[in-house]
Amino acid sequence: MSPFFASRWCPRPVHVSELDSGAPLPGGFRAAGVACGLKGGGELDLGLLVADRPETVSAARFCCSGVLAAPVLVCQERCRLDALRAVVANSGGANAATGRRGLDEAARAQGAGAMVAGVEPDQVAVASTGVIGVVLDGRLVVRGLLDAQAELRSDGAVDFAAAIRTTDAFDKHAVLAVELPSGTIRLSAQCKGAGMISPRFATMLCFIQTDAALSAETADLLLGVTVKRSFDRISVDGQLSTNDTVILMASGASGVRVEAETEDELRFGEALDALLRQLALLIVADGEGARRVGRVHVQGADGEDVERVARAVANSPLVKTALFGADPNWGRIAQAIGGAMAGAAPLSFEIAIEGVTVCAGGAAVAHDAEALGRAVAGTEVEYAIRLEGDGAETEVFFSDLSYDYVKINAEYTT
Amino acid sequence: MSPFFASRWCPRPVHVSELDSGAPLPGGFRAAGVACGLKGGGELDLGLLVADRPETVSAARFCCSGVLAAPVLVCQERCRLDALRAVVANSGGANAATGRRGLDEAARAQGAGAMVAGVEPDQVAVASTGVIGVVLDGRLVVRGLLDAQAELRSDGAVDFAAAIRTTDAFDKHAVLAVELPSGTIRLSAQCKGAGMISPRFATMLCFIQTDAALSAETADLLLGVTVKRSFDRISVDGQLSTNDTVILMASGASGVRVEAETEDELRFGEALDALLRQLALLIVADGEGARRVGRVHVQGADGEDVERVARAVANSPLVKTALFGADPNWGRIAQAIGGAMAGAAPLSFEIAIEGVTVCAGGAAVAHDAEALGRAVAGTEVEYAIRLEGDGAETEVFFSDLSYDYVKINAEYTT
Repeated sequence: MSPFFASRWCPRPVHVSELDSGAPLPGGFRAAGVACGLKGGGELDLGLLVADRPETVSAARFCCSGVLAAPVLVCQERCRLDALRAVVANSGGANAATGRRGLDEAARAQGAGAMVAGVEPDQVAVASTGVIGVVLDGRLVVRGLLDAQAELRSDGAVDFAAAIRTTDAFDKHAVLAVELPSGTIRLSAQCKGAGMISPRFATMLCFIQTDAALSAETADLLLGVTVKRSFDRISVDGQLSTNDTVILMASGASGVRVEAETEDELRFGEALDALLRQLALLIVADGEGARRVGRVHVQGADGEDVERVARAVANSPLVKTALFGADPNWGRIAQAIGGAMAGAAPLSFEIAIEGVTVCAGGAAVAHDAEALGRAVAGTEVEYAIRLEGDGAETEVFFSDLSYDYVKINAEYTT
Repeated sequence: MSPFFASRWCPRPVHVSELDSGAPLPGGFRAAGVACGLKGGGELDLGLLVADRPETVSAARFCCSGVLAAPVLVCQERCRLDALRAVVANSGGANAATGRRGLDEAARAQGAGAMVAGVEPDQVAVASTGVIGVVLDGRLVVRGLLDAQAELRSDGAVDFAAAIRTTDAFDKHAVLAVELPSGTIRLSAQCKGAGMISPRFATMLCFIQTDAALSAETADLLLGVTVKRSFDRISVDGQLSTNDTVILMASGASGVRVEAETEDELRFGEALDALLRQLALLIVADGEGARRVGRVHVQGADGEDVERVARAVANSPLVKTALFGADPNWGRIAQAIGGAMAGAAPLSFEIAIEGVTVCAGGAAVAHDAEALGRAVAGTEVEYAIRLEGDGAETEVFFSDLSYDYVKINAEYTT
């Protein structure tokens, strides 16, 4: 089995070890994935996750699209996000742009979820992914939840993860053991995402469990910081989703308490950070049709400028097709910088690809083209941009743009 | 020969007639296109346009990228843009991100152009297109200009247009006769553009000639308004170029004077508007790899919102791949609206595709899916979006995203 922490951009912290991805969930959690018929063909499409312990705390983050899916609205308006006990998640339909009817269906799924999990309805989060504009068939979900209830198991995360996949080419889940000063805890996550992945965090679902005991405030704080450094920093196609949802649940079953502002919290935070960053990188690597992953790092100017430039480079179809073609065409990076900084000519900037400086002071510099050609043919390519001044820095991970992205997206609904 | 005004979105004005695209230029202009070796293989790559009459007036518009090509900087800083008498334009190299050396080469081309045209250097505009970051070989340009001088002819526009092509699949030029109340004038243009086409006007070069007599102020006013309605309203890939240049030159050779605020000016403006809009549509139709052209029309909200939404839809790779696949997947349009209006949920909006309403009040509505499927299989597809309020409206024309866009751009430089 290839290691989960496979990217040079996300090394495994020394106090973290990888368990088999089919290992049981942290104590206090059970999961299941079943086929309820939303996708047809017997494919898994409905996931149920239950936290059995009443003392479980939680935290959540959602996308900020102006068009929010019904399940996101239901979570935001009708859930106790710091005390979630269950998640009902489906693929085969995003339940977005579905109006009043869609809200009803999301609320029904929440109600049925409460029945099978034995918790209050406002402790059940709902999440959906799939085609936008199609109302969910709530009867299928309700019936499916009965099956899922019967399937709930501590090693059900593999099925749960499979049930939330759409165009994902591979599963994205992990189980980690984390050594804290106060004891060893487990941390697991199931994640999906491959397309409609972008700014202000990606089109994706991610459910994280730990048996550490956290306060709801600590869970919220740590989730907020680590989401900003992971799912907020990736782009497959620059397209903000209507359904992004990340939920962290902590059961406390390990008996190891992570107090605020302790070494435990620091180490737990590092592990969570590594987990989410690696999952985010997996989403990019599984970017629809992707073959290579790029990282653009921008330094200088101010926070707004570095963000704008990094996004412009990461989302440029010209940069992305060059990445796909293993073409060190840095002129397109210069073009993207110029587009992001419209009206600011003349700009002085530096571009280095895999450590080879190709442009300085805004102009071409001589370099070893052959060595550069070899460097951009790998699976990970790093672009470093330096703008004038030295106020800020940021990074965005992005996928290439390939024939298969077009194929997948030209043929997805009909 | 298929008509120049071939789109339903740009009907031919009744007082305008199309001449053969190989017809002579309006009186007072000569042009040539030669192979100077920038592209290699004997391909035409250097165009020279000369206005013989000293009373010629002109107007120009350039892109606003933060990374402006050397020829754009030379035009902006070293030209009398209201009294241009010649244009030196090359393909085979954008001369952008080339620093001091690139500026020198652009200035040399200007100097050599002045010699062969017999005018002052500050009356020579220079324009380049091709790969960014490669310094122009000025010796090739200077030698080529001598050949071009010998080739200058009133019917040289076809060669001139061919010399400015890069990835363009077809020529984009036209010669029109325009009936004004005061007499008939001619209007011609040569245009290039297929990729790196986007916001705040497209990556393209367009040179326009007329034998009408205009004041420089009228030329500038009319060019400004018509560029805003044409090249400003198209996108192939959302990528702002470093080299966009549009130049209008009026020789007055027809003896027909177009005075400000007259019926002549109105009619001339209509003809210029139709010419530039149709050329803009041709750029989109020739968008790298394009098979279909979309028009998104957004109404409601305010000016900033409609612009943001229209650009988001036009530049969404998900919308563009759906257009390519003839897939009426309107959920992606809803997604693009949400992304453009982040934080504004819940939004109420309406989407109609080819007149079929698919979404109202932000939610799916029943519609004839078969009829819609047929409607999106044509070469032009219209998307109408209505936001809340009724303050503003705008339109953007865009191309689809195909395998061939990826192919062209994955293989362009190396």
